[in-house]
Amino acid sequence: MGCGHYYEPTLTGDTAFAVDANAVKYGPGVLREIGDDAQVLGMTRVMLLTDRGVAKTKHVAVVREALQQAGIDVVVYDEVAIEPTDTSFLAAAKAAADGNFDGYVAVGGGSVIDTAKAANLYATYPADLLEYVNPPIGRGKPVPGPLKPLIACPTTSGTGSECTPIAIFDYSAMHAKTGIVSRRIRPTLGLVDPDVASTLPAMVVACSGFDVLSHAVESYTALPYTRRAKPEKPRQRPASQGANPYSDVACAEAMRLTGKYIVRAVNDANDHEARERMMFAATLAGIGFGNAGCHAPHGMSYSVSGLVKSFRSDGYPEKPLVPHGMSVVLNSPAVFRFTARACPERHHEAAALLGAANANDANPASEEEAGKLLADAILGLMKATSIPNGLSAIGYAEADIGALAKGAFPQHRLLKNAPREISLTDLEGMYRDALRYW
Amino acid sequence: MGCGHYYEPTLTGDTAFAVDANAVKYGPGVLREIGDDAQVLGMTRVMLLTDRGVAKTKHVAVVREALQQAGIDVVVYDEVAIEPTDTSFLAAAKAAADGNFDGYVAVGGGSVIDTAKAANLYATYPADLLEYVNPPIGRGKPVPGPLKPLIACPTTSGTGSECTPIAIFDYSAMHAKTGIVSRRIRPTLGLVDPDVASTLPAMVVACSGFDVLSHAVESYTALPYTRRAKPEKPRQRPASQGANPYSDVACAEAMRLTGKYIVRAVNDANDHEARERMMFAATLAGIGFGNAGCHAPHGMSYSVSGLVKSFRSDGYPEKPLVPHGMSVVLNSPAVFRFTARACPERHHEAAALLGAANANDANPASEEEAGKLLADAILGLMKATSIPNGLSAIGYAEADIGALAKGAFPQHRLLKNAPREISLTDLEGMYRDALRYW
Repeated sequence: MGCGHYYEPTLTGDTAFAVDANAVKYGPGVLREIGDDAQVLGMTRVMLLTDRGVAKTKHVAVVREALQQAGIDVVVYDEVAIEPTDTSFLAAAKAAADGNFDGYVAVGGGSVIDTAKAANLYATYPADLLEYVNPPIGRGKPVPGPLKPLIACPTTSGTGSECTPIAIFDYSAMHAKTGIVSRRIRPTLGLVDPDVASTLPAMVVACSGFDVLSHAVESYTALPYTRRAKPEKPRQRPASQGANPYSDVACAEAMRLTGKYIVRAVNDANDHEARERMMFAATLAGIGFGNAGCHAPHGMSYSVSGLVKSFRSDGYPEKPLVPHGMSVVLNSPAVFRFTARACPERHHEAAALLGAANANDANPASEEEAGKLLADAILGLMKATSIPNGLSAIGYAEADIGALAKGAFPQHRLLKNAPREISLTDLEGMYRDALRYW
Repeated sequence: MGCGHYYEPTLTGDTAFAVDANAVKYGPGVLREIGDDAQVLGMTRVMLLTDRGVAKTKHVAVVREALQQAGIDVVVYDEVAIEPTDTSFLAAAKAAADGNFDGYVAVGGGSVIDTAKAANLYATYPADLLEYVNPPIGRGKPVPGPLKPLIACPTTSGTGSECTPIAIFDYSAMHAKTGIVSRRIRPTLGLVDPDVASTLPAMVVACSGFDVLSHAVESYTALPYTRRAKPEKPRQRPASQGANPYSDVACAEAMRLTGKYIVRAVNDANDHEARERMMFAATLAGIGFGNAGCHAPHGMSYSVSGLVKSFRSDGYPEKPLVPHGMSVVLNSPAVFRFTARACPERHHEAAALLGAANANDANPASEEEAGKLLADAILGLMKATSIPNGLSAIGYAEADIGALAKGAFPQHRLLKNAPREISLTDLEGMYRDALRYW
């Protein structure tokens, strides 16, 4: 996979990469198996977290019934906020602490699964919210020990949160997205039931699918782990450790699947094969970016969603909201044009894996060509799935660029994982490039 | 990966696959980090298992010192038998029980890591040895609960045991290899230090490398999980669950790496790149076959090694012994010629991943061609690395075929994981075909 020398040792860089992975079970109907899984994990009383929208679907009913049939006490908590905040995290943590649970189950998208991770954490090791949150916003204290078991059941083919050690929320006081990253908060088991995908609205499949695509491409083009400073102690090696040969394997396959199936999955709800493969791609990309970390497209997405004006999207709650995957992929082509200089071969390979028709040319692309090749491959998929034409199509203009860049600049964990250093001016340049693509 | 319809649902077959994976850390010098890792896992007094040969290497000294510097009590147990037996498993388990340890460290090849799994198991849940052993030889009782943490440090690029839920031993009373398979015995952490590969004798790199190759090809061509009967309860789903899309991803990359690097790694101890990649391939193949299971080449290997006459191999203990990887790969070409009929595309793809020059022909191979293509790809690598020319070159003749087949026939777990049903006559035919290849 990729050019071997991408992982050439450096003088001060890290010398090892550490891979973590939780158990995953995949198959149509697998949600009905959750009673047995919960028993095996020793659960007797669980908090079932979901949001009000998902709570109405049959998925929650199926999970609840399966748990109850296994003799397990279930308390449903459906107050998870879509795009969770510090307030909604704390509310869930309080309910968790009050409920005296010995296990957690999350049924929903990334917001629900991330909230379950936080509820489990703060109920098990009570602390001020910022205690475990990433610096510079939080204090980044290590999680002291193991948590209670958590089974995560994704209902979209996107976040891969069932496989990651990450929980993201909006820190209201600063209007900034931040998060908690710790191997300890990773779910114990991901239950991936591709049947959930058959009823998703097209735009949800598109946005979550582009989240998958960007997870995979960002991890594949991230700073190699050998160029991240070696930590003083091995236990301080971050989960967002940069590109590495293990994540490459998962991400390469996720790119191949996404390039092949995303357009079919979005445009035809009856194309079960395509929707199933996108569920699997989401999990693979979760395994990949959960061990590598994303970079600028995600780092830039948070101000795109946070500064939303009046944009609304089909298939999402009826309020101004830029779906997460959309807020990411609108930056991606601009970012990859910028980062290609750092590792043109990787950008070229990513384009080839996404199925770019002209990428299999044996000649390695030049820096500029590699960035264009990858950006064009993504833009082709965006056009074919009715993604808006750049940030201008969702309400941003030249006058917003300063605020967007200023909002993204503190996203250290993500921006420092890019293969090139990124200044505030670079951010402005990329947002400008992202205003309109075609 | 592969032809989608390989996982077509069947009427009585399983509908889900379950993936398990332990943490892995990979990098040159990573053995020196073990003190910190052991502390994080709460270890204060560990049993360090190894064998007498490895005990003399610097690897054991490095690990021991790193543990002691972290304030951890270390007791070295160097009595692990190469090709362990029930007796050697029990001896290690007794030492484990007597030592009152809160953690285990294995430094060695598959024999050492497998023995550490067994010692941990029987010290934690004492029982008659056959209690947890696979049927039909053992009683196959599920392991009751979690074990103590185990850090596995492989010193060969082969078994992948640092990532598997399997411990294999020779059951002396029956002169048969059997084993224990349980997700509970999987190591907590695999520490893969590619520096260990630089001092390995060429024949050890060859034999362990072909073990890797066969792990990957066997898992990739195994019976699809959708054709294995669905278990009554989800918790009964076996670790050897058959080919599945997750194992495919790991195995495909392991095949690609092995095809590209095995010859260089064997023939040039100074080719660090090739030896490093083979270490990584071994771990990937471990992740793959640990979640899919091997089939006939491994099933047939146990009588090949068990009935050894006088064969000895460079780089191994000075006694009659067929190295494990050699006992496997000598069967592989014959087996794949036989199994290709069940899934020619998979055999064709495996040949292409191993780098067979003529495999990238766009036309899917016919059944016979696919088997030949894959067998020839493996035979080319065997010739280039001085592997003996079939079973006749290690002392077997037509007169031994009955005994070899009879010895292999009870290997249910492995033989039933093949994509075609295998009769005693089929086994005889494959052994006959394996007598001489060129």
